[in-house]
Amino acid sequence: MKSPLNNLYAAQTREMKHSFVRLILKLTKGVEGMISFAGGMPSPDTFPREIIAGLFQEVILKEGHDVLQYGSSEGDPVCKQVIKSYEEVPDWPDEKIMITVGSTNGIYFYTRTFIDPGDVIISESPTFPGSLVAFEACGAEVVGVPMDSGGIDPDRLVETIGTLRKEGKRIKFIYLIPEFQNPSGITTSRQRREAVIAIASEHAIPILEDSPYRELRYTGERIMSMWEIARTQFDDPALVTIAKSFSKILGPGLRLGFIAGREDIIIPMVKWAEKVTVSPDCTTQRVVARFIEKEHLNAHIRFICDYYRPKLEAMLSALEAHMPDSVTWTRPEGGMFVWVDLPESLDAEALFETARKKGVAFIPGNNFFPKNTYRKNAFRLNFSYPSVEDIHTGIERLGSIVKTFAGR
Amino acid sequence: MKSPLNNLYAAQTREMKHSFVRLILKLTKGVEGMISFAGGMPSPDTFPREIIAGLFQEVILKEGHDVLQYGSSEGDPVCKQVIKSYEEVPDWPDEKIMITVGSTNGIYFYTRTFIDPGDVIISESPTFPGSLVAFEACGAEVVGVPMDSGGIDPDRLVETIGTLRKEGKRIKFIYLIPEFQNPSGITTSRQRREAVIAIASEHAIPILEDSPYRELRYTGERIMSMWEIARTQFDDPALVTIAKSFSKILGPGLRLGFIAGREDIIIPMVKWAEKVTVSPDCTTQRVVARFIEKEHLNAHIRFICDYYRPKLEAMLSALEAHMPDSVTWTRPEGGMFVWVDLPESLDAEALFETARKKGVAFIPGNNFFPKNTYRKNAFRLNFSYPSVEDIHTGIERLGSIVKTFAGR
Repeated sequence: MKSPLNNLYAAQTREMKHSFVRLILKLTKGVEGMISFAGGMPSPDTFPREIIAGLFQEVILKEGHDVLQYGSSEGDPVCKQVIKSYEEVPDWPDEKIMITVGSTNGIYFYTRTFIDPGDVIISESPTFPGSLVAFEACGAEVVGVPMDSGGIDPDRLVETIGTLRKEGKRIKFIYLIPEFQNPSGITTSRQRREAVIAIASEHAIPILEDSPYRELRYTGERIMSMWEIARTQFDDPALVTIAKSFSKILGPGLRLGFIAGREDIIIPMVKWAEKVTVSPDCTTQRVVARFIEKEHLNAHIRFICDYYRPKLEAMLSALEAHMPDSVTWTRPEGGMFVWVDLPESLDAEALFETARKKGVAFIPGNNFFPKNTYRKNAFRLNFSYPSVEDIHTGIERLGSIVKTFAGR
Repeated sequence: MKSPLNNLYAAQTREMKHSFVRLILKLTKGVEGMISFAGGMPSPDTFPREIIAGLFQEVILKEGHDVLQYGSSEGDPVCKQVIKSYEEVPDWPDEKIMITVGSTNGIYFYTRTFIDPGDVIISESPTFPGSLVAFEACGAEVVGVPMDSGGIDPDRLVETIGTLRKEGKRIKFIYLIPEFQNPSGITTSRQRREAVIAIASEHAIPILEDSPYRELRYTGERIMSMWEIARTQFDDPALVTIAKSFSKILGPGLRLGFIAGREDIIIPMVKWAEKVTVSPDCTTQRVVARFIEKEHLNAHIRFICDYYRPKLEAMLSALEAHMPDSVTWTRPEGGMFVWVDLPESLDAEALFETARKKGVAFIPGNNFFPKNTYRKNAFRLNFSYPSVEDIHTGIERLGSIVKTFAGR
């Protein structure tokens, strides 16, 4: 038993990837003078500490007998009811919603419910690497479909479904982040949402809508979620399951999210939760319920949006001021990320190495692509964490490095 | 898409069992006049509400920037250091310990790290059904080895290992609950612990020591954990990984536990956590760290033990007073459960049906056995949740039902 144990590992443990994104964050964290656009963290200035602190005290003193005890694997009924009301489905049966340890946890249970090794998940390309590694850990093959400024390309989606089915692949679900996508910042248009739902419905493939940034809209008009559209506009009321999170609103340290969809998806997910977590933190669930009940949520979301809007504006105007003409970028209406496209000859990883030495960091684009659609000449910038001043300084710094690389 | 989705389920989702224990708890909860010994819950009177409430407020106000933010998947370094000191391994590297969403979560990640479908886990028989269903959900075959009053039978363990290996089975680990076992209440003796470690070491099979009740000792002498014995007495310092929990000390609603062992087990477990939970609740982790740091833990454990001791005594004396001679039971020195053996002709499930109608509940023994060692004539009693008065009344009620069944 002094020998390594890896000969006893499960196949999926042996194959499990090291997260390059985590390595980058480690490399760039706490480095003197470093301005980092690499992370994906909300600003701690947005955490409603005073209210939350008071609610924790109140909930534990008044309801401690209940909330310190074991709770339901499907989530605290009080928290579920409050969330259903907030999401405007107050009469939904409890079986259609589940509280999770952050939305990552909901995505994991959804994936476990459907995926046998070799099954296929279709995603936008680029997409969120946290989900990519979770999908792969469950043995899924992730096939990416390119996006344009309106979201995932419906023609390419149809084409991909056709090709995969011809190959005999079992497509289990389509994974989408329609709002202020991570990493691209792109919001899928209403028309495109409807087109994708129609395609999914026709091919009988469920959709997992990952929507952690939905409340973080700084400009433009709110668009109905795919979950709402499927429910209200389609004769296919539960094709879409939505995963949401309180991480970007109240604080990711609370590890609280929820997932809502049809019973025959939620019930097996709850069975997985019984084995994996038993339940999310019951105290935290009740605190979040009281936070919403006491009507703090909408005001707090307005505060966050007002706080992030100038950061996004600063980043877009700094890019305008400092990037060469050969570089383009997305103009998100919310969320936390801007996506930058470089001329095809440039390699964002090489750029990263130089940038890091010069005190500015980002995540090279290749980390965001499913295997079939790898691209080197792009990167992701985060604007929620750095200060407005650091955004100006950091983008100026980055612009001059890009100019050197681009040869002008 | 209006058709059921179960044709899209993963194989393990399709096979996932309904928990009979949960059904029993549902059937017996909130029933007028019911005295239930069925649950496995700590008494809410043991939750240190005032201290915890104050600490939540203090931690969020003072450290909210940190604890409301994303935290490490391996756990809060502050909490880890405090736990290491408490467990008397202050100099252990951080890579050898991981904080989990309750100990169930640690057991799940340990299982995921090792189990491919068809692999074998050896357990005590009877054992904890929550772990049985988690093992089976990962595709493991669980093979039980009978216990006597000293714990798992070493000769039968050797025999079982031999038989399984002859059959070409891959044994991945041995799962044990050496302290106040759930459901039997049995504590594995020191000598037996050493014998089992020697066997496991000889056959190169790691041990998972599940120890959620370790601090709940009401009488008798503390025995070194298998984790401590393997570290200090054997030339095989990290054969044993221990999973512990704050559920029975501070409250299960907080969902906090930890697991400690060698790096080549903990590191892949952390990789699983990145995909499944990201991390446990960071606020709760820091609160537990401050609770221990401020030296509340030992006094609180003494309080809990003083609170539960009379309940255990009440149950043992009530059994003595009301059960017929043909019935035997364990005499635990701690924990939350007593195990009752009925004459062979009696079926605890039939008994349960009658008892339920007469206002007393327990869990029939068959729920606790791996497939190979199924037994009908036993049941589990919980004494932590009911009051001393209800214990007397309930056991009297149960005794008269058993007497009717046993024909005297």
